[in-house]
Amino acid sequence: MAAALSGSQRAILWYPPAYDIRVETVPIPQIIDPDDAIVKIKLAGLCGSDLHIYRGHEDIDKPFICGHELIGEVVALGSSFHPNATGRPELYSTLQVGDKIVSPFTVTCGECHFCRVGSTSRCIHSSLFGTPSLPGGQEQYARIPKAGGTLYNLNALSSAPLDVSKVAESSLLLLADILPTGVFAALQVLQHPKLSPMLTGLPYPWSSNIPSGYDCAGMSSAVRDDDRNITIAVVGLGPVGVCATVSLLDMLASLQKERGITYRVVAIDPNESRRTKMQAVHTAIDAKDKLSGEVVVTSIEEGKRIVAEWTDNAGCNAVLEVVGNNSALTLSYELVCPFGVISSVGVHQEPPLPFTGREMYAKNVSFDFGRCPVRAMFPIALEILLRRQDVFGTVGETTSLIDKIVGLDQAAETYEMFDKGKCGKVLFDPWL
Amino acid sequence: MAAALSGSQRAILWYPPAYDIRVETVPIPQIIDPDDAIVKIKLAGLCGSDLHIYRGHEDIDKPFICGHELIGEVVALGSSFHPNATGRPELYSTLQVGDKIVSPFTVTCGECHFCRVGSTSRCIHSSLFGTPSLPGGQEQYARIPKAGGTLYNLNALSSAPLDVSKVAESSLLLLADILPTGVFAALQVLQHPKLSPMLTGLPYPWSSNIPSGYDCAGMSSAVRDDDRNITIAVVGLGPVGVCATVSLLDMLASLQKERGITYRVVAIDPNESRRTKMQAVHTAIDAKDKLSGEVVVTSIEEGKRIVAEWTDNAGCNAVLEVVGNNSALTLSYELVCPFGVISSVGVHQEPPLPFTGREMYAKNVSFDFGRCPVRAMFPIALEILLRRQDVFGTVGETTSLIDKIVGLDQAAETYEMFDKGKCGKVLFDPWL
Repeated sequence: MAAALSGSQRAILWYPPAYDIRVETVPIPQIIDPDDAIVKIKLAGLCGSDLHIYRGHEDIDKPFICGHELIGEVVALGSSFHPNATGRPELYSTLQVGDKIVSPFTVTCGECHFCRVGSTSRCIHSSLFGTPSLPGGQEQYARIPKAGGTLYNLNALSSAPLDVSKVAESSLLLLADILPTGVFAALQVLQHPKLSPMLTGLPYPWSSNIPSGYDCAGMSSAVRDDDRNITIAVVGLGPVGVCATVSLLDMLASLQKERGITYRVVAIDPNESRRTKMQAVHTAIDAKDKLSGEVVVTSIEEGKRIVAEWTDNAGCNAVLEVVGNNSALTLSYELVCPFGVISSVGVHQEPPLPFTGREMYAKNVSFDFGRCPVRAMFPIALEILLRRQDVFGTVGETTSLIDKIVGLDQAAETYEMFDKGKCGKVLFDPWL
Repeated sequence: MAAALSGSQRAILWYPPAYDIRVETVPIPQIIDPDDAIVKIKLAGLCGSDLHIYRGHEDIDKPFICGHELIGEVVALGSSFHPNATGRPELYSTLQVGDKIVSPFTVTCGECHFCRVGSTSRCIHSSLFGTPSLPGGQEQYARIPKAGGTLYNLNALSSAPLDVSKVAESSLLLLADILPTGVFAALQVLQHPKLSPMLTGLPYPWSSNIPSGYDCAGMSSAVRDDDRNITIAVVGLGPVGVCATVSLLDMLASLQKERGITYRVVAIDPNESRRTKMQAVHTAIDAKDKLSGEVVVTSIEEGKRIVAEWTDNAGCNAVLEVVGNNSALTLSYELVCPFGVISSVGVHQEPPLPFTGREMYAKNVSFDFGRCPVRAMFPIALEILLRRQDVFGTVGETTSLIDKIVGLDQAAETYEMFDKGKCGKVLFDPWL
């Protein structure tokens, strides 16, 4: 355990009511609970969902330190961390000062019912970094509550088959939010019982887990090989949308080999520069892996046309909604087929859902909403990251999800450019 | 193949704009397509969802023959039915005049993609009996389109282990809609990945089917035995709600034996007579099976209190919404826990959904909406019916879902009483 740090540091703060970003000198955070860790920040991300706050949509009336994506190095640990911390999450007995860590964007105790069952984003101690209730990562040092549950120790993973030692830090930062969120978006549809007939070749409901004791005598239909072509749309190709598409393609390639399915993916965004990025990422993956499925990156209207053409106007089996507004939800509904699944990982706001009950009934729609349980998605996200580091790894390259890394001094102008769509994802290095 | 029938029959018709039910003499339907069957109706049900039409909510401007629940006997078959009808659903080569059948409440061709994968209620030839597009079952003879896919031949099932020969016809009528719909409501939650940690003892997402090739190294949490207590609410205890609860209890009892889970069910309705029926049904099942789970039948306010008490205010794992209006959806949202599942089988109408996007996000809600694929649910529904015929079997008894069987002459008064809640479910015997 390191001695407590003292003194001051620099941090990016948001001020109410909106559009007011300042860099200030504030105290270095202290351990205030035995479960806390203090982390020296290496990189902190700026994320699209930060813009809700930036624009003043969240009705917050006091300043706070921004940012919910962070990676860094442990510099101090609370008294709960010791080799004999048995009966608690593993990191309480193994985490060391000097370990390199990633944090999910919410506190995840690892000990409550929700954490135990894998619903880690709804931990009873959940708190979102970069809000009035918990200072964010856009500072030099951050306090991590419930750190033995919350953090991932990247040092402990630096051995085969999961060696992260050669992965760019800018890529590891993707593990804090956007890559796990992409994994979550994809898994929610591929694990859904409504997709299971295509994956198993058995008709619903026999395609999914049925309680024992029921006989399938009288099951009339038989799934044909040509039914086992899964068509999926991704709506929104910001950084999370690209991560969702990459995760989806990774899993579909696995399912193609494992289950003999075929698949087609249409990735949709009205913004041409986003499409260009997505296309470059797909081209890079395809060049390496020779994906067997068809992938089209296109505009909204062309996306609708392609889904109609591919599916004889039936609609696609699933939609990954990675935007978080009502026009994206409406488009998702238009695109999805009856008995289809919409996985919505966008951060939605106050507007009522743009659907009538009759519309939901008429298409037998399944919806999965909500915040990614990053801690639960971490192992899969990490594997995908390791497989794709050549695609994501170099900041500023055509296929990178990170446009640039800047110092804290550039915070105000960076937020403004990001808000106006004049740059892609940016990371802050608080030591530049 | 029987000769075509000719002449006239009696039928119940609805007249616009609303509340106008007449019994009239109309022509006996004829085979108009080679895939048609003509069925002599034995019993036809009156269902809660018929009230939407009765009350004029569906904006229909012409009269039609009512009723979407029917059982009967085949009296004529189109030319598609012959012993060599290979490559088509089995009944085209096996169904005989004289066979006793049940029909799902919608046409189900058995040959399109949606039928093949089990999404039978969204068959591309789907048509709802008892609407302007397809005369219903409340008549003496009915025409069944795509009959080789649509019908179930109960004669073919009259052998062990599925012997329906001793089941009351009033019970078999439950297979046309309400019991399969109850099965669907229950299966949608028990098959959902969000419930899988409780069923498997593995944390999400490892609890459900993961594409191969991903390693679960770094999976941090472990599900404890006391996490594996599933709490489910049923909202709405009309006949479908009772069927949903019975189906749920049947499956939970199976899962308790198979997986070692425990469970608690709260069945909620504001109407005391409905609660009394549900309580009687539960008591009868429990007396026979000694269910191990706790089951409470109660009012809305008391239901909320019990869920809060059972779950430490977290909410229940799943809600079966069996009403079909916004207050039921709102109550379902209040009751469900974060990462919970709402299975909504109610027939919803025009009002927008009563939720904001933020509410969906904030609880990680999963919703499954829509019409039951009766044909796909039939085998399970039939097994449950056979196990519960002592409970459901005698019309008018405390535990029966059918209050009475009446002749067509009583149609107008029966619709009126049913609409005013003065009677429970009623069947028409068109030969009385």
